[in-house]
Amino acid sequence: MNKKIENMKRLFRPRSVAVIGASEKFDKLGFHVMKSLTTGGYKGKIIPINPGAKEIMGIKAYPSIMACDEDIDLAIIAVPARFVFQIFDECHKKGVAGIVLITAGFKEIDDPEGAKNQELLRQKAESYEIPVIGPNTFGMINLVYDLNASFTPEFSLTKKGNIALVSQSGGMSHLISFLSQRQDIAFSKIVGIGNRLNVDFYEMLLFLRDDPDTKVIALYIEGVDNPSRMMQAIKEIHKQKPIIAYKTGSSKSGDKASRSHTGSIAGKYEIYVGALRQAGAILVNSAEELIDGAKALSTSSIPDGPNVAVLSGQAGPGMAASDMAEKIGLVIPAFTPKTQGRINELLPPMAIRTNPVDMGPAWYDAEATKEIIDVAMRDENIDSVVLLIMYASANIKAVQGITDMLKEWKQKKPIMTCISAPPGIWDNEIRILEDSNAITNYPSPERAARALGALWEYKKIISRG
Amino acid sequence: MNKKIENMKRLFRPRSVAVIGASEKFDKLGFHVMKSLTTGGYKGKIIPINPGAKEIMGIKAYPSIMACDEDIDLAIIAVPARFVFQIFDECHKKGVAGIVLITAGFKEIDDPEGAKNQELLRQKAESYEIPVIGPNTFGMINLVYDLNASFTPEFSLTKKGNIALVSQSGGMSHLISFLSQRQDIAFSKIVGIGNRLNVDFYEMLLFLRDDPDTKVIALYIEGVDNPSRMMQAIKEIHKQKPIIAYKTGSSKSGDKASRSHTGSIAGKYEIYVGALRQAGAILVNSAEELIDGAKALSTSSIPDGPNVAVLSGQAGPGMAASDMAEKIGLVIPAFTPKTQGRINELLPPMAIRTNPVDMGPAWYDAEATKEIIDVAMRDENIDSVVLLIMYASANIKAVQGITDMLKEWKQKKPIMTCISAPPGIWDNEIRILEDSNAITNYPSPERAARALGALWEYKKIISRG
Repeated sequence: MNKKIENMKRLFRPRSVAVIGASEKFDKLGFHVMKSLTTGGYKGKIIPINPGAKEIMGIKAYPSIMACDEDIDLAIIAVPARFVFQIFDECHKKGVAGIVLITAGFKEIDDPEGAKNQELLRQKAESYEIPVIGPNTFGMINLVYDLNASFTPEFSLTKKGNIALVSQSGGMSHLISFLSQRQDIAFSKIVGIGNRLNVDFYEMLLFLRDDPDTKVIALYIEGVDNPSRMMQAIKEIHKQKPIIAYKTGSSKSGDKASRSHTGSIAGKYEIYVGALRQAGAILVNSAEELIDGAKALSTSSIPDGPNVAVLSGQAGPGMAASDMAEKIGLVIPAFTPKTQGRINELLPPMAIRTNPVDMGPAWYDAEATKEIIDVAMRDENIDSVVLLIMYASANIKAVQGITDMLKEWKQKKPIMTCISAPPGIWDNEIRILEDSNAITNYPSPERAARALGALWEYKKIISRG
Repeated sequence: MNKKIENMKRLFRPRSVAVIGASEKFDKLGFHVMKSLTTGGYKGKIIPINPGAKEIMGIKAYPSIMACDEDIDLAIIAVPARFVFQIFDECHKKGVAGIVLITAGFKEIDDPEGAKNQELLRQKAESYEIPVIGPNTFGMINLVYDLNASFTPEFSLTKKGNIALVSQSGGMSHLISFLSQRQDIAFSKIVGIGNRLNVDFYEMLLFLRDDPDTKVIALYIEGVDNPSRMMQAIKEIHKQKPIIAYKTGSSKSGDKASRSHTGSIAGKYEIYVGALRQAGAILVNSAEELIDGAKALSTSSIPDGPNVAVLSGQAGPGMAASDMAEKIGLVIPAFTPKTQGRINELLPPMAIRTNPVDMGPAWYDAEATKEIIDVAMRDENIDSVVLLIMYASANIKAVQGITDMLKEWKQKKPIMTCISAPPGIWDNEIRILEDSNAITNYPSPERAARALGALWEYKKIISRG
């Protein structure tokens, strides 16, 4: 076990990668894996393995890993299942530290031979102490190490950050990357654990606990063979690093789907969700909620309590955020008399000056807006802020005017925002604020409030017993 | 009343627009209104009114509308409240058909003078039979007529289509436009009714019922002074045109906010929502749900029943969509034996071939994928399809391969999709399919399924009693 976890470090930060089944043919997965490695910025040595090629994508190829005189840390396997046993033996002889096994045709197939072969292969991998990501996976990406060990080069377009995604579904991993690319959500690693030969959620959690690149762990779960091990790992780790989880399989049909495709039983949804929550995971209900919550946990501080100041450049978005905030258990309290007094000086009587504050009438007065935010976030009754600013031509300088203050404050208390404008407007302003973790921005007021809910949920979890 | 509704037609399709308070100074709303009109493609005559200017943005200006010898259909007023009474009188004398009253300082302010003045102004407008959008509004945009009568030029970037948004919040209207610009959701009109002098939801509903440009009516509601009139209008219209509504004000704090900012009481949230649903509106819980549902209603047919085929290029997204579908009352039934038989021929046994179908193994076989979708959507057990395809480099041709078939089928049964890829990839393929209403696409599987729920909700509403 220790050797295997030790080997996982080399697996994720290999000095050299062999692609077994490397190809120049578009219809081979080995082609796409080579593309991912070569275009993803990987700085180590790439070693294409293909018995029929001297060179692949301009890189010297070998007929087998045994024929190659270089050391190999990671082997990515993308050849038919029938070749995999022999390749595992060769990997062992060659001293390979870890394997990404893209090949399908094991536990997930109808034929019982698939499950039998997977068990034999597992025993082999365990005896060799080689950690294996897969089989039946798209692979994994260590973004901060520029390693794209997957069959989709575009994973490398995901922003580098500190969220690690461990996912049981390739489709979900792709979706989450594509959504995150549009929302600047930043990952350390994206790992498709597929059929989990000998690296399951359990092993990934232990590995990520000690991964200095990872601050937040996001899980997409369908079903697990040994849930108690996973729950134990969550219990041990969640106070150190927040774990946010999306579990599907609540539908009868979905449950059936999971049974087949990842070779395990999704199980009774409610039992799973209850156990995950009990173990210390933050539970969410959609892919968007998963990335929204992970983004908050990754970029913001944790609030001390449930009390939110809702500060809105326009009243409607403030109402939408207030509705969501109360729905998920946050509280919108009164300000202290001192704060309220100052806000009353800054806003004309026509505005809603109590919490949630309608800062509308201060639009043209950058100083007033700035000070309202400032006094609200320093108020002792307030644990966090939801700040909503919709672009409207006349207020084009509104974000610029509060940037320095927010950058200096740096979410000492969480500041979840929906700063929204047409594409191209404020993109830069928002990026500047987000890059310094001064705000955590969302596409809508409701999603900003709900993401704050994930932070508050985490606070409650780490405060209990 | 009839004359007023008649005048609304000219208000929304004016041959000439006067901007009272037109300005070349950035800090005047009249500057931004002039920008909106001049850059929004408006083809009628623009008449700037400003006592101190000969010309504004290169257009001849007049000191007052009385001094102008042109006919004026629409007057946009962006001057302080104290001038508005006299301007209304002049508008009447001049034969102005309608007014957009951007000016604030009426019912929404703390000072009771505000409400008193609004009532006096209302009586004036009613006696003149002039419909007034506002006061305290950003204005309105008739996208299909290239008329941007608002203080935000960027509303004109919203795609032209057949959804009319009537909104009680300027902030929400801006947000909805910005979100829609990113998702290619297309509107006929965006109307900020503000403090509703004499054009409330009721009048807008009656007007939109007969508006040939509008197929779907989306409402953002905080509170209404005379809810029974609105409910009556919804009751009368909803079978002709679907009405989808987002009501905020469920939180205690939010309720307070609404009371002030639009000059009415949001009221007991549950009573409102129940009455809206009873009257025939489809209710949603967020801005994103509002546009997602409106998009489905705007582009798709209505399903005959709740039975969905979930067809997924990758199993995980299929599970997420199935979970959401069942959660909101849709059903994932078995295919007919004939359909199932054909799918079994098209997919290897390793795939999940029953509903929800994992089409993964058919990735490289465009013909098989195409036929699976084809037989599923024609299946008599199936009322609608949720189709999920995540890009993965190897499947780059997947969307192209099914385009012709989907264009020909044209959502005879609804096809809600999440076809997702990194920015720039498949944008064109998706646009081609959406432009011909062959699919209705969403950012996530859960949102695709939930939008289908809005269609099914509408079917149930129009089928009852």
